[in-house]
Amino acid sequence: MDTNKSSAQPVSLELYSFGENFFEKHHLSSTEEIKPFMDSEKKFWLNVCDLKNAKLLNEIADIFDIHILAIEDIKNNQQRPKLEEFDHFIFLVSKMIYTKKDITALEIEQVSFVFGKNFIISFQENTYDIFDPIRLRLENPHGRMRKMGTDYFTYTLLDAIIDQYYVILEMMDNTIEEIEDEITNDSQKIKLSDIYLKRKALQEIKKIIWPTREMIAAWRKSESPFIKKRTAPFINDVYEHTVEIMENLEMQRESITTLVEIFMSNISLKQNEVMKTLTIIATIFIPLTFIAGVYGMNFEFMPELQWKYGYILIWSLFLISTLAMIRYFKKKHWF
Amino acid sequence: MDTNKSSAQPVSLELYSFGENFFEKHHLSSTEEIKPFMDSEKKFWLNVCDLKNAKLLNEIADIFDIHILAIEDIKNNQQRPKLEEFDHFIFLVSKMIYTKKDITALEIEQVSFVFGKNFIISFQENTYDIFDPIRLRLENPHGRMRKMGTDYFTYTLLDAIIDQYYVILEMMDNTIEEIEDEITNDSQKIKLSDIYLKRKALQEIKKIIWPTREMIAAWRKSESPFIKKRTAPFINDVYEHTVEIMENLEMQRESITTLVEIFMSNISLKQNEVMKTLTIIATIFIPLTFIAGVYGMNFEFMPELQWKYGYILIWSLFLISTLAMIRYFKKKHWF
Amino acid sequence: MDTNKSSAQPVSLELYSFGENFFEKHHLSSTEEIKPFMDSEKKFWLNVCDLKNAKLLNEIADIFDIHILAIEDIKNNQQRPKLEEFDHFIFLVSKMIYTKKDITALEIEQVSFVFGKNFIISFQENTYDIFDPIRLRLENPHGRMRKMGTDYFTYTLLDAIIDQYYVILEMMDNTIEEIEDEITNDSQKIKLSDIYLKRKALQEIKKIIWPTREMIAAWRKSESPFIKKRTAPFINDVYEHTVEIMENLEMQRESITTLVEIFMSNISLKQNEVMKTLTIIATIFIPLTFIAGVYGMNFEFMPELQWKYGYILIWSLFLISTLAMIRYFKKKHWF
Amino acid sequence: MDTNKSSAQPVSLELYSFGENFFEKHHLSSTEEIKPFMDSEKKFWLNVCDLKNAKLLNEIADIFDIHILAIEDIKNNQQRPKLEEFDHFIFLVSKMIYTKKDITALEIEQVSFVFGKNFIISFQENTYDIFDPIRLRLENPHGRMRKMGTDYFTYTLLDAIIDQYYVILEMMDNTIEEIEDEITNDSQKIKLSDIYLKRKALQEIKKIIWPTREMIAAWRKSESPFIKKRTAPFINDVYEHTVEIMENLEMQRESITTLVEIFMSNISLKQNEVMKTLTIIATIFIPLTFIAGVYGMNFEFMPELQWKYGYILIWSLFLISTLAMIRYFKKKHWF
Amino acid sequence: MDTNKSSAQPVSLELYSFGENFFEKHHLSSTEEIKPFMDSEKKFWLNVCDLKNAKLLNEIADIFDIHILAIEDIKNNQQRPKLEEFDHFIFLVSKMIYTKKDITALEIEQVSFVFGKNFIISFQENTYDIFDPIRLRLENPHGRMRKMGTDYFTYTLLDAIIDQYYVILEMMDNTIEEIEDEITNDSQKIKLSDIYLKRKALQEIKKIIWPTREMIAAWRKSESPFIKKRTAPFINDVYEHTVEIMENLEMQRESITTLVEIFMSNISLKQNEVMKTLTIIATIFIPLTFIAGVYGMNFEFMPELQWKYGYILIWSLFLISTLAMIRYFKKKHWF
Repeated sequence: MDTNKSSAQPVSLELYSFGENFFEKHHLSSTEEIKPFMDSEKKFWLNVCDLKNAKLLNEIADIFDIHILAIEDIKNNQQRPKLEEFDHFIFLVSKMIYTKKDITALEIEQVSFVFGKNFIISFQENTYDIFDPIRLRLENPHGRMRKMGTDYFTYTLLDAIIDQYYVILEMMDNTIEEIEDEITNDSQKIKLSDIYLKRKALQEIKKIIWPTREMIAAWRKSESPFIKKRTAPFINDVYEHTVEIMENLEMQRESITTLVEIFMSNISLKQNEVMKTLTIIATIFIPLTFIAGVYGMNFEFMPELQWKYGYILIWSLFLISTLAMIRYFKKKHWF
Repeated sequence: MDTNKSSAQPVSLELYSFGENFFEKHHLSSTEEIKPFMDSEKKFWLNVCDLKNAKLLNEIADIFDIHILAIEDIKNNQQRPKLEEFDHFIFLVSKMIYTKKDITALEIEQVSFVFGKNFIISFQENTYDIFDPIRLRLENPHGRMRKMGTDYFTYTLLDAIIDQYYVILEMMDNTIEEIEDEITNDSQKIKLSDIYLKRKALQEIKKIIWPTREMIAAWRKSESPFIKKRTAPFINDVYEHTVEIMENLEMQRESITTLVEIFMSNISLKQNEVMKTLTIIATIFIPLTFIAGVYGMNFEFMPELQWKYGYILIWSLFLISTLAMIRYFKKKHWF
Repeated sequence: MDTNKSSAQPVSLELYSFGENFFEKHHLSSTEEIKPFMDSEKKFWLNVCDLKNAKLLNEIADIFDIHILAIEDIKNNQQRPKLEEFDHFIFLVSKMIYTKKDITALEIEQVSFVFGKNFIISFQENTYDIFDPIRLRLENPHGRMRKMGTDYFTYTLLDAIIDQYYVILEMMDNTIEEIEDEITNDSQKIKLSDIYLKRKALQEIKKIIWPTREMIAAWRKSESPFIKKRTAPFINDVYEHTVEIMENLEMQRESITTLVEIFMSNISLKQNEVMKTLTIIATIFIPLTFIAGVYGMNFEFMPELQWKYGYILIWSLFLISTLAMIRYFKKKHWF
Repeated sequence: MDTNKSSAQPVSLELYSFGENFFEKHHLSSTEEIKPFMDSEKKFWLNVCDLKNAKLLNEIADIFDIHILAIEDIKNNQQRPKLEEFDHFIFLVSKMIYTKKDITALEIEQVSFVFGKNFIISFQENTYDIFDPIRLRLENPHGRMRKMGTDYFTYTLLDAIIDQYYVILEMMDNTIEEIEDEITNDSQKIKLSDIYLKRKALQEIKKIIWPTREMIAAWRKSESPFIKKRTAPFINDVYEHTVEIMENLEMQRESITTLVEIFMSNISLKQNEVMKTLTIIATIFIPLTFIAGVYGMNFEFMPELQWKYGYILIWSLFLISTLAMIRYFKKKHWF
Repeated sequence: MDTNKSSAQPVSLELYSFGENFFEKHHLSSTEEIKPFMDSEKKFWLNVCDLKNAKLLNEIADIFDIHILAIEDIKNNQQRPKLEEFDHFIFLVSKMIYTKKDITALEIEQVSFVFGKNFIISFQENTYDIFDPIRLRLENPHGRMRKMGTDYFTYTLLDAIIDQYYVILEMMDNTIEEIEDEITNDSQKIKLSDIYLKRKALQEIKKIIWPTREMIAAWRKSESPFIKKRTAPFINDVYEHTVEIMENLEMQRESITTLVEIFMSNISLKQNEVMKTLTIIATIFIPLTFIAGVYGMNFEFMPELQWKYGYILIWSLFLISTLAMIRYFKKKHWF
């Protein structure tokens, strides 16, 4: 490793050294400072928050002997969630989903983990921090986090990420309920392209949750020495969470599909109503207008015009015709 | 276990101790009282009806050595149905579905089971009781429930829960038939959003029955010492029930989809009818009105107006035009 | 077994005892009479036609040692087709489909089989008999039925049931062709709800054929001593039949879906035609009526009214306007 | 075998005896003449072209010891493609697809094969011959057909059949392109029921290609002594062809679905255009007609009628109103 | 091999001989010149750019002992991507996708690979070259390409091909976004048949990417001696790329489907608006025109005509009627 380069640029690394009886927080300014911890056999968590500092990542890769492709996956923020086993560590990629506005403006952030015998490294872009509660738990001397291995520690971090998904799901549920209400109340505000954006957001979440589930399934099946049997119930629990999230997503997708159908049928129903109005008015008045037109003709010989009760008779005709029409429409259930 | 705490709050636990030759019902006021039964090697059923009393659940967990995650699943009423094998017991989560109103107001209640060598514990929220007939069967000295093991006992409880699903399915069948009738009779009352609610209810049931089937499949495949071979035909029977319920759900879903299609096509057909009415009236009278308008013009030189039979001729024209139109519409099958 | 009870009620049981060299038909009036046949090691077929006589079924269950759940499946006429292996017999449930009217009034009848080393028992509700040709084949001394085992015998009965499905499929094919013709000829008689009933019938058949296929697949995979290797080609043949039936059902379902689409598009096309008629008439005459209206006004100063050729000019205007409109519609391909 | 019967009816059988160094064609008039070839250990191909001659088929079945069910499959021209292994031969059913008119008049012909150690028998209805090029290849002394085994020979015949499918696929492609062109050019000729017939043809091909693929997959997996390892690459090749054909069918199906969608949307668009025309004309002229009607009234006191410029003012009003309407429609993008 | 023939026609073959310490580029004019490289045990890459020169391909097939079917697959540019293992080499077919215009004019080019112990042969039609960057990497003496085996080399070439797919995907993303914008802005330019062409392009890519994924999966599972363990992470990486591409394709397909739905609903909405305009105008003016018509009648006895304020009253009636109508439409939310 070239230490000269690393000293040229100040870095900020958080390292938490911990064990059943102690807990220390260190701010490292160079990757060199990691080495003593590696040799000490004490467990430590290294949190790396700068994925753009390629040099820093390469130095860490050298220290922990991380495969070139794993480092590239860490850097590439388009990497799908996955788990890969290497000889001396396990490599995980996961995705944080959150939103600062609403469900159609989801932000996705990649969090990668590397954990081995006595170390956990987490790599994040750090625009949104969800690990604070975990730091608090680590300070608790009676917590499981200090006692159990690096696999349990990683599970805790991963669980924090997946718990966030439920927040997003709930937002989606609320959004769907709002659309439902608007559609049921026949609101004019609702637009199909709005519903479309929600469906797109669902797709985005689905695209993340599928490989996440596979990743956790790979953990379950793993026979790596870094994954201990006693963590199994916990990881099964996370697995169930992913299955549940997927089922919810599926239900939400179906709900949206049905809402679109109702929206479309409402358009048809409204058009039907508009047509009926037009037809009723036109069907009543067009024949009447014709009759009026007839007696507005200027023929010299039109005997009705001289009749004493002609005008009254014509009004009677108008009335009878109108009533007949109304009756017809009533029979057809148009009112 | 901290007995002081448990004595601080009065609890209500039902415990049924039973064997081939005896059956006793006990009302326990503290979890301490469970211990003698555990040691006696007699079979007993403990029914816990208060999932909000966290302390009570924790005490039970301590006595029976139930894993922390299982207890959390018991408390969390959103848990999916599942079966988990532990060293000294089997843990089951199931869902009761019932309704106090109609099919669109389903209520879902979680019932969890823990059974081991000589004990069955059932955990329920207890707003709706379906285990009464089972208590009766237990009182019968010749019944299978007393003779067979804890696995058969749990099967009996589970079977009672799943039998309830058929009630819901039948309600759904009736609802669908009602919609069918209304649509066929072209009722004006029916609304697409009503059908939508039914479809949503179907989804809810489906979301429960799928993992329930998996749970029973897991039972079938289990090689736990607590599951005996002679219970296999019974559990196969429940499994078949879940498959049958799923098939019925699928058929109901297809029926609803088709009903929506018919509903939509009826709208189209009605609109077509409305349009035809408008078109027939307008097409007959608009040209006539024009002709009447022509002879209402005030041109000085209009020879027809002076003709002796002008007025009669014009009425003939009206008549012929109308008949021609009617014939045209008949040919087009618009009547 | 309690023989007193069975003698209290007269029963009617058909028993066919047969072997390579003989064939005897017996009418039994009590289940007691079955026992000598069981001991004689000769093959026999017992046909039970009364599923409502619970006592009779229980007696038979006692004689042949049939599991309680199997007997319950035999009684429950909602049981899905299935095969279950027991120690001393194989249990099969199958469904007969037939209709006395048309495809939308399918009747489904459950036929169950139990066969062991030297006996075949068939249980049916007996409203519709399809086993007559089999009785004839049994009378034939050179037929395979007498020579081969009970598995082949059961296959023959099952094959007779499944052959019936083809009759139903053909009826469905004819029905679909009729709908096709009606839709192509743009018949007014056809209604979407009729097509819906056909689709429902398809679903019903599908619901039976799926588990039937599974049941036959279970037979193929069975390693029971009652299923001999030489029957394999025959059972493969039935299996293929079920696959073929399922493929046909799927094609019929697709055909119906497409017919509904065509039906709906025809509605749209007709509406389009209606609209065109209205538009053509209205577009031609509304402007003309306006012009006629203008010259029906009573202004004192309207120079055109005094023109000598005013009336002729106005008619020319009417004509030119009409011709222009017609040309426009022709260009738009509305005629 | 009863030779008397076979001599009673003249039969026509083609038999090709071949080896690396020789090739002979024989016209047999009786099945008796086959036997010498069977004993000679030389390879031969027997082509049977008359599936209605049950006696002939039964005689062949006797000679080659073909199972009764295989012979029934050969006779039944509704048999699905399949492969079945028997002790001394392999039995294959395949389907030839061709058309004498167009894609909606597909004709399907069944071709079955039986091949064993030194013989290949092909059974066809023989209304359409595709094996001529193979006869030519057989005459070529350097061709692989003479050198390799009966499995390779059967592969060659099968390959000829499957190659025909591509011809049909290409016809379908052309048909779809024609429909595409007609729809894009908004042709009036196209009808939904025509597209429907194409979709039906696709279904028919799909119904054949699916089991054909399974049949070839069964060949690949077969461990029969009649299938040699060196034929594997060739059969893999045919397998790939079937996969490719299925993918093409799927693409064609999707294309047709989309074309139907476009067709339906075109109807909607046209209806929209018709409606716009009507609305523009009616919206402009109906108010004008009303105004003209007003001044056609006969009230004694109507001051406007006496105004000097009344008539000119009214025309100005007509003009302004029309221009305002046109502007409104332009804003709404109706032109 | 017949060297006379090969010398008869000038060929152009690029051969790159390389090792850890050297790199040489050779232009060969005859296939004869390949042989020395084969014997030298040095690794070399042979790039063949002329798939129409059958003789050349046959000569190469002879030199490297390539199976006849592999050579036919290389020639046939309709071959699906696949991997086949042979005794002394591995054969791969892949597809390059690129476009010179836009996403609806995709061009697909087949690139095949054959690699063995020390050689890699690539076969391409060579209208589009993407291997230039790889030639540059080969010139770099520190690059992995020189050090690792022929499997890594082939991976590099394959990776370059698959990276191109992302370019196409991005073009598709942009196109979909454009359509989205046009639909949201209710552009008049957009046509359903344009969207159709995009969907067709998606289908084409999908048809290639599916077998490509299978091909890489076959590589992963391969136990060929030519595929070394250390290349596994790299090939896993490409595999993930294909999975990711498929997921993106699926999302794009769903997006297009939804866009079509929105497009169709917009047509309905517009039609609704047109209908409303017509109905409002017609409903207001048709009754008014009738009233005006009434007072245009020429009956002798029509008392209203003599009323002093008749004309003013009639205008009041017109006004009130219009206002009432407008209020009605407002209540119905038609404005």
